[in-house]
Amino acid sequence: MVNQVSIAVIGVGRIGRLHAENLAHRIPGADLVAVSDVNPEALANCAADLGVTAVADHRAIMEMADVHAVAICSSTDTHAQIIAQAAAAGKHVFCEKPIALDLGEIDRALAAVAQARVKLQLGFNRRFDPNFRRLRDLVAEGKVGQPHQLRITSRDPDPPPLDYLKRSGGIFLDMTIHDFDLARYLIGDEVQEVFAAAAVMLDPSIAEAGDVDTATVFLRFRTGATGVIENSRRAIYGYDQRVEVFGSAGLLAVPNIAPDSVMLSAADGIHAPLPHPFFLERYAESYLAEMKEFVSSLLTDSPPPVTGRDGRIALLMGLAARKSHQENRPVKLAEIAPI
Amino acid sequence: MVNQVSIAVIGVGRIGRLHAENLAHRIPGADLVAVSDVNPEALANCAADLGVTAVADHRAIMEMADVHAVAICSSTDTHAQIIAQAAAAGKHVFCEKPIALDLGEIDRALAAVAQARVKLQLGFNRRFDPNFRRLRDLVAEGKVGQPHQLRITSRDPDPPPLDYLKRSGGIFLDMTIHDFDLARYLIGDEVQEVFAAAAVMLDPSIAEAGDVDTATVFLRFRTGATGVIENSRRAIYGYDQRVEVFGSAGLLAVPNIAPDSVMLSAADGIHAPLPHPFFLERYAESYLAEMKEFVSSLLTDSPPPVTGRDGRIALLMGLAARKSHQENRPVKLAEIAPI
Amino acid sequence: MVNQVSIAVIGVGRIGRLHAENLAHRIPGADLVAVSDVNPEALANCAADLGVTAVADHRAIMEMADVHAVAICSSTDTHAQIIAQAAAAGKHVFCEKPIALDLGEIDRALAAVAQARVKLQLGFNRRFDPNFRRLRDLVAEGKVGQPHQLRITSRDPDPPPLDYLKRSGGIFLDMTIHDFDLARYLIGDEVQEVFAAAAVMLDPSIAEAGDVDTATVFLRFRTGATGVIENSRRAIYGYDQRVEVFGSAGLLAVPNIAPDSVMLSAADGIHAPLPHPFFLERYAESYLAEMKEFVSSLLTDSPPPVTGRDGRIALLMGLAARKSHQENRPVKLAEIAPI
Amino acid sequence: MVNQVSIAVIGVGRIGRLHAENLAHRIPGADLVAVSDVNPEALANCAADLGVTAVADHRAIMEMADVHAVAICSSTDTHAQIIAQAAAAGKHVFCEKPIALDLGEIDRALAAVAQARVKLQLGFNRRFDPNFRRLRDLVAEGKVGQPHQLRITSRDPDPPPLDYLKRSGGIFLDMTIHDFDLARYLIGDEVQEVFAAAAVMLDPSIAEAGDVDTATVFLRFRTGATGVIENSRRAIYGYDQRVEVFGSAGLLAVPNIAPDSVMLSAADGIHAPLPHPFFLERYAESYLAEMKEFVSSLLTDSPPPVTGRDGRIALLMGLAARKSHQENRPVKLAEIAPI
Repeated sequence: MVNQVSIAVIGVGRIGRLHAENLAHRIPGADLVAVSDVNPEALANCAADLGVTAVADHRAIMEMADVHAVAICSSTDTHAQIIAQAAAAGKHVFCEKPIALDLGEIDRALAAVAQARVKLQLGFNRRFDPNFRRLRDLVAEGKVGQPHQLRITSRDPDPPPLDYLKRSGGIFLDMTIHDFDLARYLIGDEVQEVFAAAAVMLDPSIAEAGDVDTATVFLRFRTGATGVIENSRRAIYGYDQRVEVFGSAGLLAVPNIAPDSVMLSAADGIHAPLPHPFFLERYAESYLAEMKEFVSSLLTDSPPPVTGRDGRIALLMGLAARKSHQENRPVKLAEIAPI
Repeated sequence: MVNQVSIAVIGVGRIGRLHAENLAHRIPGADLVAVSDVNPEALANCAADLGVTAVADHRAIMEMADVHAVAICSSTDTHAQIIAQAAAAGKHVFCEKPIALDLGEIDRALAAVAQARVKLQLGFNRRFDPNFRRLRDLVAEGKVGQPHQLRITSRDPDPPPLDYLKRSGGIFLDMTIHDFDLARYLIGDEVQEVFAAAAVMLDPSIAEAGDVDTATVFLRFRTGATGVIENSRRAIYGYDQRVEVFGSAGLLAVPNIAPDSVMLSAADGIHAPLPHPFFLERYAESYLAEMKEFVSSLLTDSPPPVTGRDGRIALLMGLAARKSHQENRPVKLAEIAPI
Repeated sequence: MVNQVSIAVIGVGRIGRLHAENLAHRIPGADLVAVSDVNPEALANCAADLGVTAVADHRAIMEMADVHAVAICSSTDTHAQIIAQAAAAGKHVFCEKPIALDLGEIDRALAAVAQARVKLQLGFNRRFDPNFRRLRDLVAEGKVGQPHQLRITSRDPDPPPLDYLKRSGGIFLDMTIHDFDLARYLIGDEVQEVFAAAAVMLDPSIAEAGDVDTATVFLRFRTGATGVIENSRRAIYGYDQRVEVFGSAGLLAVPNIAPDSVMLSAADGIHAPLPHPFFLERYAESYLAEMKEFVSSLLTDSPPPVTGRDGRIALLMGLAARKSHQENRPVKLAEIAPI
Repeated sequence: MVNQVSIAVIGVGRIGRLHAENLAHRIPGADLVAVSDVNPEALANCAADLGVTAVADHRAIMEMADVHAVAICSSTDTHAQIIAQAAAAGKHVFCEKPIALDLGEIDRALAAVAQARVKLQLGFNRRFDPNFRRLRDLVAEGKVGQPHQLRITSRDPDPPPLDYLKRSGGIFLDMTIHDFDLARYLIGDEVQEVFAAAAVMLDPSIAEAGDVDTATVFLRFRTGATGVIENSRRAIYGYDQRVEVFGSAGLLAVPNIAPDSVMLSAADGIHAPLPHPFFLERYAESYLAEMKEFVSSLLTDSPPPVTGRDGRIALLMGLAARKSHQENRPVKLAEIAPI
């Protein structure tokens, strides 16, 4: 077992910057050695703040012999290619979701990883939230008996910019994909069929961008359990992230998490604080935990906790949901591709 | 405006007995004058306890000139016929849901009521629960803006006896029908399409009885809002009756209601009381309130708050859900019958 | 065992009217036969609404042979005398708290009751609240082990009129007296010492009336357990009625109770409903339950659940608290009188 | 403004080790350069883990020219002396509470600090808890109007070892002292009188050690507001840390904080997670925040957020409470010493 892994972060926008800071300061056993970004200013700032090498072209990182692993946080359309480059260079990979919006691309990237025998961990950070993880553990321990019904409520505080939406692959591949992965993780079973009903309820310009902003997705698991995902691009009260698993022996629930717990009783009612505003705050702990586990899987040469296959299946679910919405009928995953 | 209405209760099983007691003791303006039941013992006990006339054959009630109205709480298969008898006798009618399991029967009963110009109120008691009513009022006031997503969680504590199940019309007509009515009531809009996914998860003998025990029903309203109903015949923690309405301006929620609010913090956790065990306890107030409003509509000659049409539409939704489950596809209500 | 008890209500102001209505309509085995009040209009209205005899001078009730019991709900200064009159007439007595503001008067009233061997139940209605009763039962079952610390938070929504305050005996005898009784009831032990700190924080005219509006009272029980009562005459958010019992094995708590449970999540926070506005709403169930138990104790000839001695001890605690506040020192109940 | 402060930690037991780790890894602008401890093993481990110099005798640190500040986390009886040594060496001081158990010692230490014009911050970490801080801010903004009643519930999960208790100064100086400081902080006013009632309820050996384990302390502020502190050395359900401030315009409350929020509804009740087990978990954020603010006050040459005077007043309150308990009477702080 090695004592230290050297990592470079490719893409230091919002989420890449967060990973870089965690790797630099908060993860024992990790050594952040370089960062890369297509935006020269973001790159220079990040490198200076963290005292690491700035690399303008990420391909140069592949040549750096002392880099053991890369964290890919660049735009989605570059993920598959950079994974392949890293694998060819023998570097382990942490990659933000999704790998790609196209199954063929994903399969080629996973093949490159498999051939190079490097590790690949997908950035499904919600699995590392202490609440969801505990709920999953309690489900696995049988605390609700046989799971019958899952519910994931997942609403963003605000739609992303239209520019982003146009390149996002649509709500099912961009937003619901996190919920698809969480559903598999919490229930410990594969989904075989989905039914998605979606509409534009918030803003007609979202329709013009070819997307929807409100969706309800029904899931049927192999065991017969069912699930419902409730999505909206705008919850005016903040980032709405809740889960329930109902089973033969009970119900487990994770409510929203707020930054503080101060209650005010006043003449006009009892007032509790709003949930965290968005994912950086809500999932701060889980972003740290997922990277710690990635580093740990490298240090101990053990399998990463979220695999490329997990990324592929979540995308498959997204493609099935998109088809279901387009055709207004339940769609089996097997119609899209074998799991 | 009259000061007092004389009412007879037909069928004094569990729910009929409750209505009879409420009419006898707790509703100013109501005078319980007679009760009827096919079970002689239940009839004798109820009549003695409440000090009213026992009528073995309910048809004799139709001859009693001093009876202004009847409350029909007999078995479902008798509802339509007794409604018609009462209407012919010029008596107003309160009728437990459903009117019938067959649309034709319902239409004939409603026609009889219309022709006789008597009032008919359906027993969708949940509309009278103070929590659901307040949520509905807040939705109507625009507190959540435009409603986008509705969720009704509705789980019984235990499946009914198989004998009952066989005659019940199935989960959608027997159990979900309450949720269908609640959905229309809370959102103030009609559903145009449903998708139902259901299975037997609890007990194979329910499958043998031709029914399912676990169901998720998706609703699409005319406005584009969607809804999800989660049903199970067995929630081990009690009667699970919750509602959420999500809209452009916020979220309204009704949690489960418990008989008391005592919290225990002990070495093994923080413990709160279970919800009410079942409907008689959970909806005690709403049963009283619906009958008060029925009496009030008679005293003031105003329209009853839940109409025969409401009963017909809820059944229509149930028939569409059953078809959707059988054919595993979304079904429009218009496929079944015009609303 | 008799089947029915005939009761007259003396004093049909706010609380007397409530008891009269409960006795008339909601308590099997009770027969309300007469009401009395010094206010002719209140008397006439009540008698007409409930269809019972109106008696202008309550002493006439003592002559009515068919009256088994009286419920005394007149002004506090008349309680002791009417108790003695009723006892002399052989009638059982339900009496609103307090019996009197003077120990000697109380002792004379209790002696009259004892001599006549009639039953006397005091109106400490909070003992009959389902939440407090359940908490008490759980304490008695040992769910918190040995009780160590009690807390009663008891705040009114608004001060009473100054006229009332001047005749009330002061906050400790008028308001805290309920909490003193509740403390003994919940812990099942006697208090031996109190320390009271009080001030006028709300309104200088309350000081001019010789009273205070904000008080904290410390209690020391015989077992060594301690308690704190928090009182205020004005909680702007409603009637604040909460209890906690902490012991060697855990903590039991009763939160505030609200008229509904609808939660609103909006842009400016999560909002829950305010507690019940005041005692008639908060303790509606307990007023009914205490009278049911009074009637039951008459029907079954069993001891009433709250005795004259309970009323006397609560007053003793109030007198000790008043002295403690005046002298700013802990005061033992034994300084006032033997328990 | 300097960019970096070099700090040594004296005493690396439980809390000192935590501060050392925070200084080493998590506080930008801080440079941990040395640690010291009387226990050679703890010292060696800490120094090795954090890669800093181990100093057996803390006095050697005073000679290190590149050390700008020390964090004193050694046993209480050494605090005052080390403060004086550090001040004499011109080093700024962060010191865990209390400075000393004797007012004279405190006054001498504060005089040394004043003379050397170094900064001194006391380790009242609860002021930095995000919940308490937000409550304080809302009180200061007038959200509850004029504060009338404060309640602090503060219960440990288990008594400390008897050895510790014997040297601790007793519950009021060791445990309640945190609550005394929090009371002043939350209300923004000084306490002028206390009344303390305490007893041994848990374990007779605590009495043999000359201490008590259960205490209720009443506080009277200058404005007339009052407060109650509830202490116990053993809450079987975990670390019980709650606060309420009641005022003319409302009520603010901080509930207990749990490590996760997963709710389980099962056949035997609804179960929520226990609070954090003890202070290291409950106040992890506040320990970090207080040290960040200490570092910031050094970097910006601004006054520290908790001063030596704060430490002195909290001790004064503890001495008054001890006297009150011994003499069973309210004690004014002025009886002990001028504030």
